[in-house]
Amino acid sequence: MTAFACPLGNGSGSREDLGARTARSALTDSESTVEELLDWLALCRERAAARIRRVPLGELDGWGFDPETGNLSHDSGRFFSVEGLEVHTDHHARGTWRQPIINQSDIAVLGVLAKEFDGVLHFLMQAKLEPGNVNAIQLSPTVQATSSNYGRAHHGSATPCVEYFTDPGRARVLTDALQSEQGTWFLHKRNRNVIVETSEEVEVRDNFRWLTLGQIHALLRVPNVVNMDARTVLGALPFAPAANPSARLRTTDERFGRALRRSLGVGEAADPARMTEILSWITRQRSRHVLVTRPVPLREVHDWSLGPRGLTHRHGRYFDVVGVTVTAEGREVSSWSQPLLRPCGTGVNALLVREFDGIVHVLVRITVEPGYRETVELGPTVQFRPHDHAHLPASRWPRFHDVVSSASGTVHYDVVQSEEGGRFHHALNRYLVVEVGAEFPTSVPEDFAWLTLGQLVALQRHSNYLNIEARSLVCCLQTLW
Amino acid sequence: MTAFACPLGNGSGSREDLGARTARSALTDSESTVEELLDWLALCRERAAARIRRVPLGELDGWGFDPETGNLSHDSGRFFSVEGLEVHTDHHARGTWRQPIINQSDIAVLGVLAKEFDGVLHFLMQAKLEPGNVNAIQLSPTVQATSSNYGRAHHGSATPCVEYFTDPGRARVLTDALQSEQGTWFLHKRNRNVIVETSEEVEVRDNFRWLTLGQIHALLRVPNVVNMDARTVLGALPFAPAANPSARLRTTDERFGRALRRSLGVGEAADPARMTEILSWITRQRSRHVLVTRPVPLREVHDWSLGPRGLTHRHGRYFDVVGVTVTAEGREVSSWSQPLLRPCGTGVNALLVREFDGIVHVLVRITVEPGYRETVELGPTVQFRPHDHAHLPASRWPRFHDVVSSASGTVHYDVVQSEEGGRFHHALNRYLVVEVGAEFPTSVPEDFAWLTLGQLVALQRHSNYLNIEARSLVCCLQTLW
Repeated sequence: MTAFACPLGNGSGSREDLGARTARSALTDSESTVEELLDWLALCRERAAARIRRVPLGELDGWGFDPETGNLSHDSGRFFSVEGLEVHTDHHARGTWRQPIINQSDIAVLGVLAKEFDGVLHFLMQAKLEPGNVNAIQLSPTVQATSSNYGRAHHGSATPCVEYFTDPGRARVLTDALQSEQGTWFLHKRNRNVIVETSEEVEVRDNFRWLTLGQIHALLRVPNVVNMDARTVLGALPFAPAANPSARLRTTDERFGRALRRSLGVGEAADPARMTEILSWITRQRSRHVLVTRPVPLREVHDWSLGPRGLTHRHGRYFDVVGVTVTAEGREVSSWSQPLLRPCGTGVNALLVREFDGIVHVLVRITVEPGYRETVELGPTVQFRPHDHAHLPASRWPRFHDVVSSASGTVHYDVVQSEEGGRFHHALNRYLVVEVGAEFPTSVPEDFAWLTLGQLVALQRHSNYLNIEARSLVCCLQTLW
Repeated sequence: MTAFACPLGNGSGSREDLGARTARSALTDSESTVEELLDWLALCRERAAARIRRVPLGELDGWGFDPETGNLSHDSGRFFSVEGLEVHTDHHARGTWRQPIINQSDIAVLGVLAKEFDGVLHFLMQAKLEPGNVNAIQLSPTVQATSSNYGRAHHGSATPCVEYFTDPGRARVLTDALQSEQGTWFLHKRNRNVIVETSEEVEVRDNFRWLTLGQIHALLRVPNVVNMDARTVLGALPFAPAANPSARLRTTDERFGRALRRSLGVGEAADPARMTEILSWITRQRSRHVLVTRPVPLREVHDWSLGPRGLTHRHGRYFDVVGVTVTAEGREVSSWSQPLLRPCGTGVNALLVREFDGIVHVLVRITVEPGYRETVELGPTVQFRPHDHAHLPASRWPRFHDVVSSASGTVHYDVVQSEEGGRFHHALNRYLVVEVGAEFPTSVPEDFAWLTLGQLVALQRHSNYLNIEARSLVCCLQTLW
């Protein structure tokens, strides 16, 4: 059908089911061990020789506060700005408040280039420097750039490989959707989460490596190595669990691994009526909840003020906005200044999971965040920052947080990972997958629902169903089969 | 799985494939002919005894202009308001302009209740009065009400049957998604398009009738009978074309009917890789196009001004905002006043279709409209109002409009239908399905793509893919098989 469907790319490449191909890639370690890959990242870190220094917001080169509104933006009008937002909602932190928020209308390409070597899918990953990373360099998608970047707004060098994602028909699309990012920090932000496959020769530069999913999954057991963008892009890949039932399992828990494989197999095709119910549940929640926002001048966000530490909340809660200057080799430009949002304390993003009839089900929760376009997205079972809740009575803490903190279930995954270092400063979250047993209530409040992993992957084909924390956790969960 | 999936409704009802059930309903005429149904609508019209009168906007009871902004809204702050919007886009009518727009944050339920009688799905339809209808009463969904209505903001009587759509688990969901409406007239509007099936006894009031899809399809061949909401809700139903290959065809053209049935069968399940390409094409268009809007006071929309005819454009283009008062029996309240948007002239919404390998493909076009939440939705091949283009050279008229006006193809459908009479005054569009032959170019500009009917139905499971004009046409197209 491609001849008359011109704008829709070419159909070249293997006709084998994508799920089976990703499963094979996840079972292949290729030549390098985790230790060798961590050594390579350390070498890239050394080569980059990055110097990252905190500076007052008023001293950021090229950035300034608007004399009228107090909004913080770049002199060129590009990249992003920090503005004020008034929020009214009936959910979670119900009520009306004002807060600073990052406004970035530019849609970034978060693109991973894939290619088969010896019949196994490999993914071209980049050791990328971001000023907000705790360890400067993390493993990132092939391309992670806004059009300001790849359109060279800051006069840097061209973004390698971007043409595979922007030229229609250049490569075969495996997955491609606009997705939201942190809704309390970003206003209406969305990025293109895309994976394409090529059969062309690709020039592999310094700081780039072809890795199998098996290698990437192994690196996901180590804190702060696989960056946020790589996690959420790769988490959208479908798996065919039945591809090789006799293959060894990655998890130490054989029973859980098998129940997880079955969960991957229960998606839209296996049970369309159930998917209709899930979509209807989301539609009803979207109809029911209120989220009204309006832009306000940053100077009229009265709970935040500008001081030597940056823009901070009067009780030291939520986040600060701080400034950094960066000097480095091998990035688009070798030195620049920018603001970063610095969250207060480490967050918790936890999925409670449970086996029903031998199939792992994941307990997701409706979330409403100020920056969402569609009012409601699905988040982890528990998503919160303990620091911001310390002043509240236990009754105001999120439902089921006690199950996570008491570790009364079986902890299958518990690793600290980083959020996007290009916008956030040392933003760390503890990601957990905790299995609960038969004593856990099966019937849950209307905000919650039990979904299979196959259903979560099906939802990720479309925008605005899973929030970024849930998408990250789907990627972590896929490492356990 | 329903026991542990509490919020997700009950799974009662037939386990037979929904597509097969809708196909059977479409092939069943039940007891009443088109003439009898039109007589019944005429009787309802007579009973309603509606008096609809144009009045100046300043004399609308309960409505007023804000002294500061000039925005027109209801004293209660509910229902909707008419505000100003500044628009900047790079698509179609590229450039920057200001216009009035309807702002209604309330999400309406557009709900059709279904039930099997003698093994055939029937749909409970309502003869509903709307003040903007050319013929006062049209065939509408079972429930067509905003929460202002069914929450009784105007102190009317309760909305019949609304509980089937609002109470979780009360009925079995067949389809349920939030969808946009006219993006040049509504800001970020979305309504819940939902069909549920019950096995309960349902009280059928005056003005309500159980109809088969076959009966509704027959009424769709008559102008201005099946209202906009009924068309877009019912158009989301899947069909199983192979259910009864020997059944008689509705269309007079056997070849076309068969090619259309095959097109219904080519959806997501039949070719997932093709659906990935389609989703990627939409994602790329969303990334590429610019749509920036900001609210402005209505009094600062300088091309429109208030006169005896209402709020009108200085060249008499696009639309007016007018006032009406209504007195009637049998609606929520028996008399009220409200503003309506009155478009200038009759619009054209046309789908060009073509057979490839015995399968009908539909040529859809990327549209960008000011009120869209996701920048881009898919529209008909040609969607425009000739009146608003009369002053422009032919080169500025939409691509392929000449194919429609010259009728160089085979016209399978050509009926004038109405848009929503609760917000628009005599808003008429000519809906066309025109089949083009082998001389038509297969390769089309990047804004266009050839999709099957099965793919269009699959996209309608989710929000913001198909615009309201395209969804209406999908419903019209389904009458032709």
